[in-house]
Amino acid sequence: MQRRVALIGASGYTGVELTRLLASHPNVELAVASSDRWVGESIEGKVGAPSALRYVSLDEAVAQAASCDLAMLATPAEASMALVPKLLAAGPRVIDLSGAFRLRDATLYPTFYGFEHGHPELLANAFYGLPELYGPERAAARRDFRLVANPGCYATAIQLALCPLLGLSTLAHGAAGRIIVDAMSGVTGAGRKAAEEYSFAEIAGDLRAYRALRHQHQPEIEQGLNDMWNEGTAHPRVSVTFVPHLLPVQRGILATCHIPVSSGTTAETVGYVYRTAFEREPFVVLAKSADDVALHDVVGTNRCRIGWSVSDRGELVVTAAIDNLVKGAAGQAVQNLNLMLGLDERTGLAGLRSFHP
Amino acid sequence: MQRRVALIGASGYTGVELTRLLASHPNVELAVASSDRWVGESIEGKVGAPSALRYVSLDEAVAQAASCDLAMLATPAEASMALVPKLLAAGPRVIDLSGAFRLRDATLYPTFYGFEHGHPELLANAFYGLPELYGPERAAARRDFRLVANPGCYATAIQLALCPLLGLSTLAHGAAGRIIVDAMSGVTGAGRKAAEEYSFAEIAGDLRAYRALRHQHQPEIEQGLNDMWNEGTAHPRVSVTFVPHLLPVQRGILATCHIPVSSGTTAETVGYVYRTAFEREPFVVLAKSADDVALHDVVGTNRCRIGWSVSDRGELVVTAAIDNLVKGAAGQAVQNLNLMLGLDERTGLAGLRSFHP
Amino acid sequence: MQRRVALIGASGYTGVELTRLLASHPNVELAVASSDRWVGESIEGKVGAPSALRYVSLDEAVAQAASCDLAMLATPAEASMALVPKLLAAGPRVIDLSGAFRLRDATLYPTFYGFEHGHPELLANAFYGLPELYGPERAAARRDFRLVANPGCYATAIQLALCPLLGLSTLAHGAAGRIIVDAMSGVTGAGRKAAEEYSFAEIAGDLRAYRALRHQHQPEIEQGLNDMWNEGTAHPRVSVTFVPHLLPVQRGILATCHIPVSSGTTAETVGYVYRTAFEREPFVVLAKSADDVALHDVVGTNRCRIGWSVSDRGELVVTAAIDNLVKGAAGQAVQNLNLMLGLDERTGLAGLRSFHP
Amino acid sequence: MQRRVALIGASGYTGVELTRLLASHPNVELAVASSDRWVGESIEGKVGAPSALRYVSLDEAVAQAASCDLAMLATPAEASMALVPKLLAAGPRVIDLSGAFRLRDATLYPTFYGFEHGHPELLANAFYGLPELYGPERAAARRDFRLVANPGCYATAIQLALCPLLGLSTLAHGAAGRIIVDAMSGVTGAGRKAAEEYSFAEIAGDLRAYRALRHQHQPEIEQGLNDMWNEGTAHPRVSVTFVPHLLPVQRGILATCHIPVSSGTTAETVGYVYRTAFEREPFVVLAKSADDVALHDVVGTNRCRIGWSVSDRGELVVTAAIDNLVKGAAGQAVQNLNLMLGLDERTGLAGLRSFHP
Repeated sequence: MQRRVALIGASGYTGVELTRLLASHPNVELAVASSDRWVGESIEGKVGAPSALRYVSLDEAVAQAASCDLAMLATPAEASMALVPKLLAAGPRVIDLSGAFRLRDATLYPTFYGFEHGHPELLANAFYGLPELYGPERAAARRDFRLVANPGCYATAIQLALCPLLGLSTLAHGAAGRIIVDAMSGVTGAGRKAAEEYSFAEIAGDLRAYRALRHQHQPEIEQGLNDMWNEGTAHPRVSVTFVPHLLPVQRGILATCHIPVSSGTTAETVGYVYRTAFEREPFVVLAKSADDVALHDVVGTNRCRIGWSVSDRGELVVTAAIDNLVKGAAGQAVQNLNLMLGLDERTGLAGLRSFHP
Repeated sequence: MQRRVALIGASGYTGVELTRLLASHPNVELAVASSDRWVGESIEGKVGAPSALRYVSLDEAVAQAASCDLAMLATPAEASMALVPKLLAAGPRVIDLSGAFRLRDATLYPTFYGFEHGHPELLANAFYGLPELYGPERAAARRDFRLVANPGCYATAIQLALCPLLGLSTLAHGAAGRIIVDAMSGVTGAGRKAAEEYSFAEIAGDLRAYRALRHQHQPEIEQGLNDMWNEGTAHPRVSVTFVPHLLPVQRGILATCHIPVSSGTTAETVGYVYRTAFEREPFVVLAKSADDVALHDVVGTNRCRIGWSVSDRGELVVTAAIDNLVKGAAGQAVQNLNLMLGLDERTGLAGLRSFHP
Repeated sequence: MQRRVALIGASGYTGVELTRLLASHPNVELAVASSDRWVGESIEGKVGAPSALRYVSLDEAVAQAASCDLAMLATPAEASMALVPKLLAAGPRVIDLSGAFRLRDATLYPTFYGFEHGHPELLANAFYGLPELYGPERAAARRDFRLVANPGCYATAIQLALCPLLGLSTLAHGAAGRIIVDAMSGVTGAGRKAAEEYSFAEIAGDLRAYRALRHQHQPEIEQGLNDMWNEGTAHPRVSVTFVPHLLPVQRGILATCHIPVSSGTTAETVGYVYRTAFEREPFVVLAKSADDVALHDVVGTNRCRIGWSVSDRGELVVTAAIDNLVKGAAGQAVQNLNLMLGLDERTGLAGLRSFHP
Repeated sequence: MQRRVALIGASGYTGVELTRLLASHPNVELAVASSDRWVGESIEGKVGAPSALRYVSLDEAVAQAASCDLAMLATPAEASMALVPKLLAAGPRVIDLSGAFRLRDATLYPTFYGFEHGHPELLANAFYGLPELYGPERAAARRDFRLVANPGCYATAIQLALCPLLGLSTLAHGAAGRIIVDAMSGVTGAGRKAAEEYSFAEIAGDLRAYRALRHQHQPEIEQGLNDMWNEGTAHPRVSVTFVPHLLPVQRGILATCHIPVSSGTTAETVGYVYRTAFEREPFVVLAKSADDVALHDVVGTNRCRIGWSVSDRGELVVTAAIDNLVKGAAGQAVQNLNLMLGLDERTGLAGLRSFHP
């Protein structure tokens, strides 16, 4: 049976990616797609996806979503915050790809997103949809959730890299030290932009840090790590120093992660931990070392590739790579859709072809 | 008076850059340039620099260098190791751009460079030429040095970023913690390569770490930091966790540096330290924050741009950018040449035009 | 029923693309894949395609191909020339992606391919597989062909752009004038290369013509045009001035074509001709003008996009774009496979996702 | 003696390039630089050029220009059209880098530039400043001109490639045929843009034609060719079919030119013609063939590189490359400044370093 899905915000980079995935998904009928800029144009003509649908306005899409099984929002966070309660009230379950419902602590929104959260009551009930971290039980439970907050792109790569290691970390025992992550993202992570600073002439050949120590994914990552860490026991709260960088590529995130571990930790120990954590995960690929993880390994796919190296001096570095538009956004949203609809998690995602020549 | 300079290894990327700088240097006569691949071709025809010289073979260049004031080597480390003693014996003073004479501890060479050092006796007398770190006195003293080891590209950016901060660091007082540096370099840092892994099809759109925790600039950086730190007092030895990445750009290095500092350290404190360290340095530019440092700010020039940010939680991040072929190689070599010849440090370097449109 | 296919030469860029397409093709079992460099490695590990197969050596692949329905060769032309007769003798039908069997005139091989053709007797019986140009009847007939020569990448784009226009051309009536084509290709068109001239540092930011007026696709294009043109009547032979350029992108060809047309020819006339030629072709998309054709429209897909503009002065320009690795190589080979096996031409190709964000 | 120069429009890509060139020019004092967006900021801080000047508003710059020897405008064409008469009236001689005064026929402006020309009386007296084409006498005469129209980027490369060949062309004798030029430009040719279509995500990996058959440089090129051609004799008027393309590089233009020539024309004949035309030109470099001309050969410099190939069939193709911001704009403007001030044409331009690693 085809489940009817409404896509709100179909013309951003994430929206286009999601349109293509949904249009090819065997168990989904893409029933509604909104784009104020492309109203009346055909999906096939604009993005080459096999669909007979035409774009409608946001208002019309929200109205039509009432008759859908699921609404997916690829809208900016502030727009999502306003739209999600209306959509939930109208009927469909919701997957929101923005940050609007990822943080449980509403007081963080003004600082990190620039707006007061108007619906803090929904935050507690939004499920944070990072499937690999919450295991089969939770995945099953997700069938009952009405609102899934799809994780951020950086947050996906970094939590997949760090969460399994928390047990190895000296931080878990209250030792001093820090988790440090430098991550680099392709420009589509910033969304579709008519801005001089994102022009080819400015980006090509360049690299720079941005929002260093104050990116909105930092509290999202810390929330995830502390959820994981403190489960069952009382550990000191950990924090992550996070510096994102803007990379002259179209797609892909590489996160280079440094976490202090007990002396005597070896690459083998780390490998055992990762294999245990991810042995049944179809979208996590373990690499031979920190050097064996490249954007090219993942771009175009829903995979996260993770590698690690340990020096003779006990330094551990972990690298994790994803496609920011797939595993970091639209692909993970489809993964969540699959879980919510009781489908195999890989449906519509397993055959995604790598973009690397 | 023109000083006669011999350039050994003129056809690598560093060699080409150095050729262009020397050909335009007002106090230098580029008297010899070797390139086995371009023997007999004209410098003007191959690299567009204003010179009537033609390339000669390595053997011929070494012979001709005897009559020069200075020999500059842009050869691989193992080749430099063998050539430098011959050149010194023949007469000219020497600036070596490879790593062959940068480390004082000869036992590090097999691990980090892959060869036994055949001339350990020269290591103690090679001057490590990072001008901004050794002050005016040493610059003066340099006029007497016969062999200058020109620093590595990563090592230049990272030492300029970190050395001034050592006094602020909790590490200076024996506290636990680590200095962590993730750095990204354009492909010319790897030299001229006929290798599939450096082909456009493999590099464009990609990013990956390489030689994570085992790059040959790590001991060079640590030697520099410990030289600085321990001057006069007995501090614990510090180490640096260093992960280089290969970036899909032609030129430029960005180093993102994390150093633990005492609580209460502010952006203003850090700024005071940097201004004190670099107030008279023509090639160091201080930026407004860690976000305000981009490859585009420095590519084509001999400048190092440094920015820093401190979070409310006391995290400090420092970014430093250089052009790996200029301040990270050929430009710094000319800076050293100027100092060795008693010229203004800026000669031939001040007018270098930025490559950023 | 699954048809067994052997892929010879699976590790070049075309071979990798074809591996991914075959591994996902619903009616094909990828039974053999050869790669001397990757012998023993798994297809899934190397290229991320869903297959349990491991690479075998060329010799082993040729032996195993005997039990396959079809052998596909993504080998260099000289290698194909030697392998195809052996494979045909051993049993399977053959699709050769090289130029070895595209030209009927064996005397052209020394000039354009650099070798004497050792099997000229096969040239007359090789079918030149550009499906859109040979219509449904020939497509049907193709089921009987044993050897299909898959067209070259430039030749595909240029023939699709020019062949329908021959009737409009003044050249058809013996008038003076020329067809001129300037085309630009991404670097994967040159194959996997460990060559300095294809390194990122040399290609990024560059553009140059190569093999101007002497590229091996020129006789292929002219053969195709003259086959089409002279059908049934006696027209003067036409020639094409062809200048290819190397573009700093990974994939994609844009061909800009100039053909003299009778005065009074309008954009509407041209549009009528193209619509008539391609109305039933699933992989040809007609654009609004010559400006409305970009690599981004086609990269990742099996589509050819064609646009045209006519000036007030009667100048006609046609632009055509394809992905050189898909419609220009592996995708068209699968299209030919579909026709040879009596399948819908679109099988395994219709859902290919665009790479454009 | 330093000549005082006012630069109007200093923050576009051409303006920045010109700022850097003027700030380093030995006979020029950059006395005024306008940029409404950067008012009050220092030139050194914004573009790294050695100057103590700060940007002023357009109005202030025009006022201050009265006391300068020369005003240079890097403003859009419509702005230049309005500003130039005011500046001329105020005193300084003027070099305008826009198209506002390049065409003698005012009726072409609405079609090609989108505005009515408000000062057609100035068109006849504006000198079209392509130095290599007008020889030493005209260069001398230029000292008397008060308004120089600096040529367009495409128009520079294409006229340098084609003008010397007119005598060889069959078109000169009234034969049928066409001159066809396909040219490709880096994105800085479009100026500084805050437009989605010029964003990195849209440009990287792409190529497309734009303004095919209707670009504003077409009448400029034809005016130049016909000026040259008809000098002294009565030839039929020639036209040029011109298709520009947008290239994913920052700088550089490559023009691929096709001109019909008499049978028997050889590469040697063509070479003789070019050598005769350009033997004394410091900025024209003749290459070995059409394949031997790359953006990398010229980017960063004021050079135009020209190569040609002739096939056995008598086809001639000429490629010409320039840096669109240097020889195609700011560098050529400095060349014109030198001529107007009676300086050596190479002043401030000879030492420009190539950007190619």
